[in-house]
Amino acid sequence: MAVKVSGPAISAATARVLLCLGEMGAEYELVPVDFFTREQKSPHHLARNAFGLVPVLEDGDLLLFESRAIARYVLRKYKSSGPDLVREGSLEESAMVDLWLEVEAQQYEKGILPIFFQIMVVPVLYGGVPEEKLVADGVEKLVKVLDVYEARLSQSKHLAVDFVSLADLSHVPFAHYIMPTPYASLFQSRPHAKAWWDSLASRPACKKVTAALLTSELSLLPLMDDACLHF
Amino acid sequence: MAVKVSGPAISAATARVLLCLGEMGAEYELVPVDFFTREQKSPHHLARNAFGLVPVLEDGDLLLFESRAIARYVLRKYKSSGPDLVREGSLEESAMVDLWLEVEAQQYEKGILPIFFQIMVVPVLYGGVPEEKLVADGVEKLVKVLDVYEARLSQSKHLAVDFVSLADLSHVPFAHYIMPTPYASLFQSRPHAKAWWDSLASRPACKKVTAALLTSELSLLPLMDDACLHF
Ligand SMILES: N[C@@H](CCC(=O)N[C@@H](CS)C(=O)NCC(=O)O)C(=O)O
Ligand SMILES: N[C@@H](CCC(=O)N[C@@H](CS)C(=O)NCC(=O)O)C(=O)O
Repeated sequence: MAVKVSGPAISAATARVLLCLGEMGAEYELVPVDFFTREQKSPHHLARNAFGLVPVLEDGDLLLFESRAIARYVLRKYKSSGPDLVREGSLEESAMVDLWLEVEAQQYEKGILPIFFQIMVVPVLYGGVPEEKLVADGVEKLVKVLDVYEARLSQSKHLAVDFVSLADLSHVPFAHYIMPTPYASLFQSRPHAKAWWDSLASRPACKKVTAALLTSELSLLPLMDDACLHF
Repeated sequence: MAVKVSGPAISAATARVLLCLGEMGAEYELVPVDFFTREQKSPHHLARNAFGLVPVLEDGDLLLFESRAIARYVLRKYKSSGPDLVREGSLEESAMVDLWLEVEAQQYEKGILPIFFQIMVVPVLYGGVPEEKLVADGVEKLVKVLDVYEARLSQSKHLAVDFVSLADLSHVPFAHYIMPTPYASLFQSRPHAKAWWDSLASRPACKKVTAALLTSELSLLPLMDDACLHF
């Protein structure tokens, strides 16, 4: 029985889960959650995730939320059918995957998310003017993070280990969103970060998921409480 | 050879790691990092963690940072000598541990950390006045989180599974900090959250670590860039 993922594909957190399912060649059913009607705050959805957020994964009786926890579950469940993206066979390698996944969640997202929100969501959807201070703060954080990545990626082809891992893939949704903007230069101007991004973006599973992150779907965003702004 | 943990015990992130080592009965050497001299930004420390933060764990040649990644490593490495706090033998149980550990990192910490900072660090150390708006925002977030916990803990003795896990223990350092303040009532007024906290706080490993989180050590805080304020 295919697992069910609830969430609009536009959501970066949902895209993280779909990307992992895609990498493992797993079948899944994508159940839309309608931000227009605030379905994420409906009793039905709150019973699945009391925080009223997407994505949610259902696998038989098992109900999960938090995209990075779901991603780990998916990669373990289907481990025999795709690449080893969590490296749990090795104490050291799995620790490196955990470390760089934490960096993605704790450092990278706090830089890139406000940039994305201010430069894309605010002007495109609210017809507003980006708050320059928030963009500048985001850029300052992202620059620090990408400087660390550049040094790291000059020694290792990927962040955690020499192979692609969940730690790398988890960066894809937000990076994809800012690639058509001038802020892409933060990646492009750093040769190792650029090569890393290019190699991630060319993966078939990434292409499939990012194709669904269509700009037109951005029109859904104003109806979210805080549009992923959980930082 | 005992692992080395670098960081002042006052740091909540360092305490998270020490707690896991304590639970597993593992020997460790605590290497002080002197925030007075900004040792966390020294070339020596930046070579261990380019983000200039504590804790760092060294185990032979392996160098790790990010407290939750280190915690997982410690619990796996010493798994035969203490309680099973990550439940990796079960796909479903480990997913629940991952889920509630993400909630701790993504939701709980964003509520409790600004409260801690504003009501303890600002007045005690800067002789300043807490920014009421920041406290109120923190309280609003923490109330939502604790309401979800209260419902969850009325069905299960612990957050992830029926046994104590890393997901529960990861809450200890910040909860311990606010327990002597009026904000303890946020926990105390919710019977299941209170019982949960009481059972965590009474664990020998928790008592040992929280005894080190002495108020006197708060005097170290003003020298941190942002004193754990990574949110
Ligand atoms: N840490 C969570 C974040 C989930 C999240 O923020 N989801 C956003 C979409 S990316 C959402 O559901 N927003 C709806 C709302 O805020 O009402 C995860 O990784 O799953
Ligand atoms: N996400 C990191 C956070 C580490 C962190 O913020 N550490 C603080 C102490 S709790 C620190 O090193 N502060 C020193 C500074 O900001 O200069 C972890 O869990 O290890």
